[in-house]
Amino acid sequence: MQANARVLDVDANCAALDAAAQAAAADGAAVLVTPELFPVGYAPLRLRTDLDPSGLPAIRETLSGIARRHGIGLAYSLPAVTDRGNWHITSTLVDATGTELLNYAKVHLFGDGEREAFSPAETGPAVVDFNGFRTSMVICYDVEFPEAVRAAALAGAELLLVPTALAHGFETVPQVLLRARALESQLTIAYANHSGNEDGCEFLGGSVIAGPDGSLLAAAGPGAELLYAEVDPDAARNARGVVPYLRERRPELYRSWGI
Amino acid sequence: MQANARVLDVDANCAALDAAAQAAAADGAAVLVTPELFPVGYAPLRLRTDLDPSGLPAIRETLSGIARRHGIGLAYSLPAVTDRGNWHITSTLVDATGTELLNYAKVHLFGDGEREAFSPAETGPAVVDFNGFRTSMVICYDVEFPEAVRAAALAGAELLLVPTALAHGFETVPQVLLRARALESQLTIAYANHSGNEDGCEFLGGSVIAGPDGSLLAAAGPGAELLYAEVDPDAARNARGVVPYLRERRPELYRSWGI
Repeated sequence: MQANARVLDVDANCAALDAAAQAAAADGAAVLVTPELFPVGYAPLRLRTDLDPSGLPAIRETLSGIARRHGIGLAYSLPAVTDRGNWHITSTLVDATGTELLNYAKVHLFGDGEREAFSPAETGPAVVDFNGFRTSMVICYDVEFPEAVRAAALAGAELLLVPTALAHGFETVPQVLLRARALESQLTIAYANHSGNEDGCEFLGGSVIAGPDGSLLAAAGPGAELLYAEVDPDAARNARGVVPYLRERRPELYRSWGI
Repeated sequence: MQANARVLDVDANCAALDAAAQAAAADGAAVLVTPELFPVGYAPLRLRTDLDPSGLPAIRETLSGIARRHGIGLAYSLPAVTDRGNWHITSTLVDATGTELLNYAKVHLFGDGEREAFSPAETGPAVVDFNGFRTSMVICYDVEFPEAVRAAALAGAELLLVPTALAHGFETVPQVLLRARALESQLTIAYANHSGNEDGCEFLGGSVIAGPDGSLLAAAGPGAELLYAEVDPDAARNARGVVPYLRERRPELYRSWGI
């Protein structure tokens, strides 16, 4: 799902997400990946000032209900406040019954706004079995670091779901880096961006789904759209059989080099 | 320099390299990057069987002489035998006086032939000042691993010279991975491949020079050619100022994640 959110208009954003989930499910999709912070809009400083975190559990209930009602998996992204009071940017994967399978909190924050409003997390991406795919998540700027995707792949991921909020002008991120991440760590990546303007930021759109051979399975234009790809359950294993990048890494040397 | 070598015909290969150095110097080039094992041809098993390593110092002298005679830096690749008798695939950068500035030995060997004929090295890429550029080298399959290029960039490299021997069918390596390596580690990469057939292997050609913004500064076709690019001395610093990937890595977390 590539779409434009309305900042702090949760009802409108959840209605858009509900319509997208209905349409995607009707078209046979097993999972809908949505942009970073979509239900609340991408506006780090305003979220930190104006969003009441006590409302987050109800938003999560609404999102689980959308997945359950349409019988489709859903990857969504929201702020979360830790027990120690730190605000994180998180993502969650729920299955078609609305059950939470996986949570992730963003490790690499981008820019002054995010760093002022949020704290970076420290836990690597976990992996869960989802519809027969070993599935993981990272968020936006994380995926620009090969290390984050390596961590997911080395933990067993063959499918990586990436909510993002990428501004206009960074076309090389989806067109070059995302393809390379999929190719070098040999998994499928679905990267879902905002479109249009939110809180003064003009977003690129340009969401992509990239396969483990480095090909683009689908690529969006600048506007709102639902982008589909069919993922071959054997694609990651086949790619890893042709060139065994993950097995031929030399991690003990990398550590000795201090990287 | 993208070209076809004749296996074990050192005189012919050095003559081709000499002509390329003369032409490149006449066109104002400061350095000529040549393909993996070009002076001896890319044929790991035949090299190991039929190449007399006692002849290697004379080949190196010839190559230094080519650089000196034409007044151009030269990055070349040859086998080398360690004191313990291990055969490595190496690369060397000599300056325009023929003086050796930098040596590197390949860490990631590709395929059964290379692994049967050679031993993998363990030392990370070093960096040297060359014509005002902090310069490093890796070889072929090494560059497909983001970790190898990270190591060079973290050691200060802003220019990476990569002799390679990439077979037909791997177009995504120069077109996707090389651009991503340059973009994610924010340096300029010159990647020089063989063309044509050597010892039964059909090479891709397709050499590229990629800039730290992920752009292709130059890209070769399938046949022999000299490929040129002008490298902005400020390009790496400028890119690192826009998005500080190297500074915003979280190496202590990567280590804690076990990658």
